[in-house]
Amino acid sequence: MATQEQDFLALVKQINLLDMNLTLIDWDSHTNLPQDGASFRGELTGYISGQELALRTGTAMGQFLDYFAAHPTALDEKGQQVLRLVKKDYDLNHDIPAEDYAAYQQVVSDAQQVWEQARVAQDFSLLQPYLEKIVAFKKQFIPYWKRGQATDYDVLLDQFEPGMTVVQLDPIMATLKAGIQKIQRTLATRGTQPRTDFMSRAVPEAVQERLVRATVSRLGYDFKKGNLSRSTHPFTVALNRGDARITNRYGVHDFQMALLGGIHEAGHGLYMQNFNPDYDYTPLADAPSMGLHESQSLFNEIFIGRNAAFWQGEYGRFQQTTGDIFADIDEATFYQGFMATKPTMIRTEADPLTYPLHIVVRYELEKALFNGDTTVAELPALWRQKYQEYLGITPANDTEGILQDIHWAGGDLGYFPTYLLGQIYAAQFYHTMSQALPVTDILASGDYSQITQWRKDNIHWFGASLTPQALIKQVSGEALNPQYWLDWMTATFENAYQVPK
Amino acid sequence: MATQEQDFLALVKQINLLDMNLTLIDWDSHTNLPQDGASFRGELTGYISGQELALRTGTAMGQFLDYFAAHPTALDEKGQQVLRLVKKDYDLNHDIPAEDYAAYQQVVSDAQQVWEQARVAQDFSLLQPYLEKIVAFKKQFIPYWKRGQATDYDVLLDQFEPGMTVVQLDPIMATLKAGIQKIQRTLATRGTQPRTDFMSRAVPEAVQERLVRATVSRLGYDFKKGNLSRSTHPFTVALNRGDARITNRYGVHDFQMALLGGIHEAGHGLYMQNFNPDYDYTPLADAPSMGLHESQSLFNEIFIGRNAAFWQGEYGRFQQTTGDIFADIDEATFYQGFMATKPTMIRTEADPLTYPLHIVVRYELEKALFNGDTTVAELPALWRQKYQEYLGITPANDTEGILQDIHWAGGDLGYFPTYLLGQIYAAQFYHTMSQALPVTDILASGDYSQITQWRKDNIHWFGASLTPQALIKQVSGEALNPQYWLDWMTATFENAYQVPK
Repeated sequence: MATQEQDFLALVKQINLLDMNLTLIDWDSHTNLPQDGASFRGELTGYISGQELALRTGTAMGQFLDYFAAHPTALDEKGQQVLRLVKKDYDLNHDIPAEDYAAYQQVVSDAQQVWEQARVAQDFSLLQPYLEKIVAFKKQFIPYWKRGQATDYDVLLDQFEPGMTVVQLDPIMATLKAGIQKIQRTLATRGTQPRTDFMSRAVPEAVQERLVRATVSRLGYDFKKGNLSRSTHPFTVALNRGDARITNRYGVHDFQMALLGGIHEAGHGLYMQNFNPDYDYTPLADAPSMGLHESQSLFNEIFIGRNAAFWQGEYGRFQQTTGDIFADIDEATFYQGFMATKPTMIRTEADPLTYPLHIVVRYELEKALFNGDTTVAELPALWRQKYQEYLGITPANDTEGILQDIHWAGGDLGYFPTYLLGQIYAAQFYHTMSQALPVTDILASGDYSQITQWRKDNIHWFGASLTPQALIKQVSGEALNPQYWLDWMTATFENAYQVPK
Repeated sequence: MATQEQDFLALVKQINLLDMNLTLIDWDSHTNLPQDGASFRGELTGYISGQELALRTGTAMGQFLDYFAAHPTALDEKGQQVLRLVKKDYDLNHDIPAEDYAAYQQVVSDAQQVWEQARVAQDFSLLQPYLEKIVAFKKQFIPYWKRGQATDYDVLLDQFEPGMTVVQLDPIMATLKAGIQKIQRTLATRGTQPRTDFMSRAVPEAVQERLVRATVSRLGYDFKKGNLSRSTHPFTVALNRGDARITNRYGVHDFQMALLGGIHEAGHGLYMQNFNPDYDYTPLADAPSMGLHESQSLFNEIFIGRNAAFWQGEYGRFQQTTGDIFADIDEATFYQGFMATKPTMIRTEADPLTYPLHIVVRYELEKALFNGDTTVAELPALWRQKYQEYLGITPANDTEGILQDIHWAGGDLGYFPTYLLGQIYAAQFYHTMSQALPVTDILASGDYSQITQWRKDNIHWFGASLTPQALIKQVSGEALNPQYWLDWMTATFENAYQVPK
C-alpha cells in the first residue's frame, strides 16, 4: 500500500510534468510558433496553466500539507525538502481571493501589451495607470504573503531571492556604488583606453553560431542534454536535466553579443543539466533562487568569458574559426577591446562593471514604491535623475529610459536585484574555486573539465535542496560578501586598461 | 445559463486542447528532443495521453452521449457532426476491458522496440511472437468494435477509412494490378528509357531546402501558419489550422527525394491550414479519413509534382536555384529522368506507378490474416512470393522485405490501403478540377493560386464534417473510381517515355 509520502510525491510529480509541459510550450512559442498559431497557443497555455495551478493549490495539496504538519516524521529528508518548497508555493497562491488574482493577471496581461505601445510612443504615461494598478494589487496581496518579513519590499524580494532583505541589500548597493566609481576613476586617470574599432567587424552569423557551439561545449554544456536554437531574445529553459535548452541571437556586426550571450545561457543550461537525479520530478530540480540561477550564467559570461586567462587559450581557436577577419589583431589587443567599459543607457547592453549601477537605480525605485512614499507617476523623473547621478547619462526619452525593461509591466517587482546578486554570488564562487583549483592554468589550457566538475559537485548537484544562504555558506564558508566582486573587477579592469601596478 | 450543447462543446474543446498538446510533444520529439530527454518525455506523453483518454471515454462524455441519444434535437448541425465523430471514438475505446487494452498497448510498445532489433538482425522470427499477440488482440477486440461490417477486416479498414470494405477494395486492387501491368508492358515495348544519370548529381542540402521552401510556398503552403523543420522521416502535424508544421530530410545526391518529400508534406499542411474556422477546437478540424488526408499530399506530390506542365513552369526556376548543376540538361530530358519508373524493394522509395503494387501485397496479406486462414508465421514466405509475382523482385532478407514498415508492429493493421486510396482520390479530384479549370495552363504559368483556391473551396474547408463517401460524391459527382488514376498514369508515363501515339 502506498504511503502518504508516496501519494504526496505522486501529486508533486503530476505538477512537475505539467510544468515540463508548460516549459516546452513556452520554448516553442519563442522559437517555432507560426504567427497564426498565436491565439490557439493562448488557449492551450491557459488551459494547461489552469490544470497546473489547480493541482498546486487544490484540496488534495491542502490535505497533504495539513497531514504532514501534524505528522512531521511521515516524510524522509527529501520529502521534507520538497514539502518546504511546495508549502511556500501553496501559501503564496492559496490565500489570495481567486477573483482578485484573476483581475491582477488580467492587468498584467494588458500591461505587457500596453508596454509595447508605450515603447513605440516613447511615452510612459500610457503605461502609468496599468503600473499603478499592478502596484496597488501587490500592496493588497503583501499582507497575505507576509511571513515575518520586516518591510513590504522584503516580501517581494523573498519571492525571487528567498531570505533576501533590504537590510542586507542596502550596504551591498552602497559598497558597489562606491567601489565602481573608484575603479572608473582609476581607469580614467591611470588606464589606457583600449582600441575597439575591430569589435564591430562583420562575422557571418553561421560562423558566430559555430563559435558558440564549440565554446559552450568546451565549457561543459552537453548537447545530449539540450540544444541551441534561435530566438529574438536569448533564454534558457529546462524541461528536465536531460533537456535543458538554450537559445541565442546573432548580429553580423556584434559577435561579442552572440558569443557572450551564448556562453551566458549555457551557464544556465549547465546548471540545469547537473541536478541530482534523485530530485527528478520534484521542485528540488531547480536553483534555490533566481540570483543563484543567474550566478551560473554570469559565472560563465563574466568570470570565465571575460577572463584574460580564458582568452589566452581561446583566442587562437577564435582566430581559426573566424578565418582572416582578426588576423591583424593580436591577443592582447583583442582582449583589451573585448573589455572596454562605458556607461550605456540600456541595462542589457551594459558591461559587467557598469551593470550593477542599472540595478541600483531600479532597486532604489522599487524600494521607494513599497517602503517609501514615491508614486508611479514620479518614477520617470527619478529614473532620469538617478541615471545622471550614477551613470552620468540621461535618457533622451522613456523608451531608452524607464520603458526599456518589461519586468514591471509583467508584475515582476523585486526581481531586478537578483541579476546583481548573481554577479556577487558568482564572484564569491570563483574566489572559492580559485583556492581549490589552479584556475588560471586550467583556463589557459582550454580543457575546462575540472572547473565544470567543481561547479557540479559544489553547486549544481544540490538543486533547490538548500536555501540560498545555506548554499553560499556551504560552498564558501561565509555569507554573501560583495568584496570578492569588487576585487575581481578591480584587478580585471586594471589589467585590461593596463593600469601601472 | 449554458446549454447541454455548450457544455458538450466545452468538453470537446478540452480534448482538442490536449490533442494539440500531444501533437506539439510528438513534433518536438521528432525534431528537437535531446537524447537524454527521452525517458522524461515518455513520462510526459504517458501522463497527458492518460488525461486525454480519460476525457474521451469518461463518465461525463458517456452522459452527454446518452443525453443526446435521448434528445437528438438538442444539437444544431455542427453539434451533430461533432457528436457523430465523438461517439464513434467513444464506442471504439469504451467497450474494450481496460486491462486488455493496457496489455495490448504494452505489446505494441514492446513490438516496436523488437522491430528495430529484428531489422538489425534481418530476422522476422524475432518479431513474430509479438505480431501474433497483436493479431490475437485485434481478433479479440473486433467483436467490440463491429457495427454491422460484413467481415472482420472491414472493421479494421473502417478505423482508418470509414466505410471502406473489401467488397469495394477487391475490384479496385484487381483493376490497378492489371492496369499497371499494361502500362509497364507499353513502356517496355514502345517507350524510350529515360536518361537518369543526372538525377544523383550533388545538390547542397541548403539549396534543396531553399528549393522546397520556395516551391511549397507557391503551391499555397502558408509559412504564417506553419514551419519547415528537419527530421529523420518527413511528416506533417497540425496543432490547429494556424500551426500546421511540416518536416523534411535531405540527401546531397537525392534532390528528388527532398523536393517531392517536401511537396508531399506541404499537401498535408495545406489541407490542415484551410479548415473552416467554425470547426476550431473540434474533431471536425481534420480530414474525414486517412485516405483523404493522403489524397492532398499525393495530389501535390504526384498530380502536380510529376506533371509535365508543372515542370514547364518550374524548371527555369529550378535551374536558377541550383546554379550550374543542371545547366547541360534541358527541360524535356530533366522531366523524362524525373519520371523514370522501376520496381523497388522498398515501398517508400517507389515511384507512383509501381507504388500501388506494394499496397496490393500488404492488403492481400492483412485480409488473409483476418478474413482467411493465413498465420503470422506464413507471412514472410507469402511476402516474397507476392513481391516476385507483382513486382518481379524478391527481397534478399526480411529487413528489405516484410520488416521494412513499422506499421504492423505499431498495431496499424488495415492502414496500408489508405495510401493507395489517397492516390485514387487525388486522381479523381484532379480530373474534376480539370473540368472546372484550365489546369495545364495554370500549372505552366507558375501561379498556382487558382488551384489552391479550388482545393480549399471544394475539399479542405469541409474538414471531417462529411464522410469520405459524401465528400468524393459532392466533389466529383460519383463514387470512388480508380479509372481516373489509370488514365492519368497511362497518359503521363506514355508521355514521359515518349511512346508514339
